[in-house]
Amino acid sequence: MKFDIALIPGDGIGPEVLDEGVKVLEKLQHTSDLSFNFQEFPQGADHYLDTGELIADESMDELGEFDAALMGAVGDPRVKPGVLERGILLKIRFSFDQYINLRPIRLRDSKYTPLKNKSPEDIDMVVVRENTEGLYANSGGFLRKGTCEEVAIQEMVNTYHGVSRVIRYAYEYAVESGRNLTLCDKCNVLGYAHDLWQRCFQDIGEDFLEVKKDHVLVDALTMKMVRNPEELDVVVTSNMFGDIITDLGAELQGGMGMAVSANINPEGLSMFEPVHGSAPDIAGKGIANPLAAVLAAAFMVEELGAEKEAAKIRAAVDRALEEQQLTADMEGELTTSELGDFICSILE
Amino acid sequence: MKFDIALIPGDGIGPEVLDEGVKVLEKLQHTSDLSFNFQEFPQGADHYLDTGELIADESMDELGEFDAALMGAVGDPRVKPGVLERGILLKIRFSFDQYINLRPIRLRDSKYTPLKNKSPEDIDMVVVRENTEGLYANSGGFLRKGTCEEVAIQEMVNTYHGVSRVIRYAYEYAVESGRNLTLCDKCNVLGYAHDLWQRCFQDIGEDFLEVKKDHVLVDALTMKMVRNPEELDVVVTSNMFGDIITDLGAELQGGMGMAVSANINPEGLSMFEPVHGSAPDIAGKGIANPLAAVLAAAFMVEELGAEKEAAKIRAAVDRALEEQQLTADMEGELTTSELGDFICSILE
Ligand SMILES: CC(C)[C@H](C(=O)O)[C@@H](O)C(=O)O
Ligand SMILES: CC(C)[C@H](C(=O)O)[C@@H](O)C(=O)O
Repeated sequence: MKFDIALIPGDGIGPEVLDEGVKVLEKLQHTSDLSFNFQEFPQGADHYLDTGELIADESMDELGEFDAALMGAVGDPRVKPGVLERGILLKIRFSFDQYINLRPIRLRDSKYTPLKNKSPEDIDMVVVRENTEGLYANSGGFLRKGTCEEVAIQEMVNTYHGVSRVIRYAYEYAVESGRNLTLCDKCNVLGYAHDLWQRCFQDIGEDFLEVKKDHVLVDALTMKMVRNPEELDVVVTSNMFGDIITDLGAELQGGMGMAVSANINPEGLSMFEPVHGSAPDIAGKGIANPLAAVLAAAFMVEELGAEKEAAKIRAAVDRALEEQQLTADMEGELTTSELGDFICSILE
Repeated sequence: MKFDIALIPGDGIGPEVLDEGVKVLEKLQHTSDLSFNFQEFPQGADHYLDTGELIADESMDELGEFDAALMGAVGDPRVKPGVLERGILLKIRFSFDQYINLRPIRLRDSKYTPLKNKSPEDIDMVVVRENTEGLYANSGGFLRKGTCEEVAIQEMVNTYHGVSRVIRYAYEYAVESGRNLTLCDKCNVLGYAHDLWQRCFQDIGEDFLEVKKDHVLVDALTMKMVRNPEELDVVVTSNMFGDIITDLGAELQGGMGMAVSANINPEGLSMFEPVHGSAPDIAGKGIANPLAAVLAAAFMVEELGAEKEAAKIRAAVDRALEEQQLTADMEGELTTSELGDFICSILE
């Protein structure tokens, strides 16, 4: 099986960690019948500062021809917050209608969680985040900007189209994995946007009577995540709330070093990325943790249908954890590229 | 000093826990020169189901004459989510322009936090939450409701008026308490609403050069709260984000049983409440934890200017913790009213 993979390195530690993801995939070519054709796309802060362009229209057109995309991380202190995020990451999510953002939260070893008395069985949930609308629609405006009478409005735009498809996906996911489904919203305050979420959740639920479902307000959900994470299975939520609870979840499962995110269009181009940011403060030092990028590559391989190979990569990551072959953020002594090499050595 | 206090018991465990707050204040009358005049206002689910009215216009008018209000908790399963919340709690916050929602997050004993290796010095922060606009403006609408082409829009409305006053309050709070100030927003995505927050934070900061300030995105803030809460001091944030992070904070400081919230209008009526909800499942059983209501009463007494008496109530709560004179949720054996009695006995 041959796949064309687009690489979007981004900024900061993005390129370094992505290199390790690619290294692992290249290794996989020797030990399986998978083969990959990588192509890197020009974008990121340097490209923007040089050319004024975030990502070329032709790149966007070309991207559509690929089987999947792998991203490093976006964000650079030289560029105003939001410009790269909206102009590259969110642009790809929206343009390729990657309406599912799938984020597993899974603890691998009790020692990595900041929570007392929680084991890997307790912290094992998946967030299905809506990824193409809500507060991310970038809809809104200013009135009397810069004056004492300024009004700034940001619209949370939800559509039946957008909400129903992510909820249906979440129900299907719950059925396939035999797990319960929780809707996370703030329906007691967001009487328009989350009234729609409530109705969709009920109505679509009629088609999935076998799924045990419940509802938790977003504020209460963050409490449950730290007090009783074992009560959570699959959680479906809106774009902004998903952003917040998955960062919290990443920390609970042992930190950003291992959290991954799949931006999925079930009928089109999907993009896989670490949850962590570009961490410009540690970029170029060879100390960034590549495990999230490696696990993002595994996630991609799985979604491309090669579940066995994905499992192999994950098992190699588990070995790195067991043998404490890790980067400094996880109290190991390896450099970014040494850790990539270690994973490859296990795959041999 | 004589104060007129309005009581809004609400539903579920609201009335039970409020009774204990009042009991403690009544006790205080014998041991200090404070005296209180209590008046309860008709509202809540029963009143609504009987009369169709949430809270009477005359009640709202009268409320304005009081020195402060003390609330129990809102919410009842017989009423559609949002009706009581918007019709009573949010109505009071908005009508009396209680634009500051002050929520201290303070751990009293390491054993109560779900976090590993965190002591009371580590978990000690205050959230200053905007309380009168943002996503709570209840602004928005539906197009083609109930069809497959439905659009539901919820507006996050921010004004210079609203944002600047809460940010100024937070800076003043930081100066007075000698603490650092963190702005929590999502400016990299909310290019309208949180651009205004960014500008206000910078501009008003010019008047408070002595305050050490920084900025953390809301998703990253939830991570910091569980990994490095000791790095957080005073956090200023928008209404919705404040709702989320203070519930998380309540859990980190030992659960909803002790989290309090002050809805403050510095020039008008302020209202004090437990952060917890109405917990209808345990209502009427005499097992609800009254400490948050008691601490809300202490918060009120402090804001009314009687700091010494507030400290006395808090010290009594600390005694209850030390002596494990608690309700079942905190592994004690007292009933709601026995715990109230215990606090009073300490105040004697
Ligand atoms: C970088 C940012 C725009 C992005 C988001 O908010 O979605 C990130 O936080 C994420 O969760 O992938
Ligand atoms: C009951 C609800 C409307 C309220 C809010 O969202 O503000 C509550 O969660 C709170 O934090 O006081």
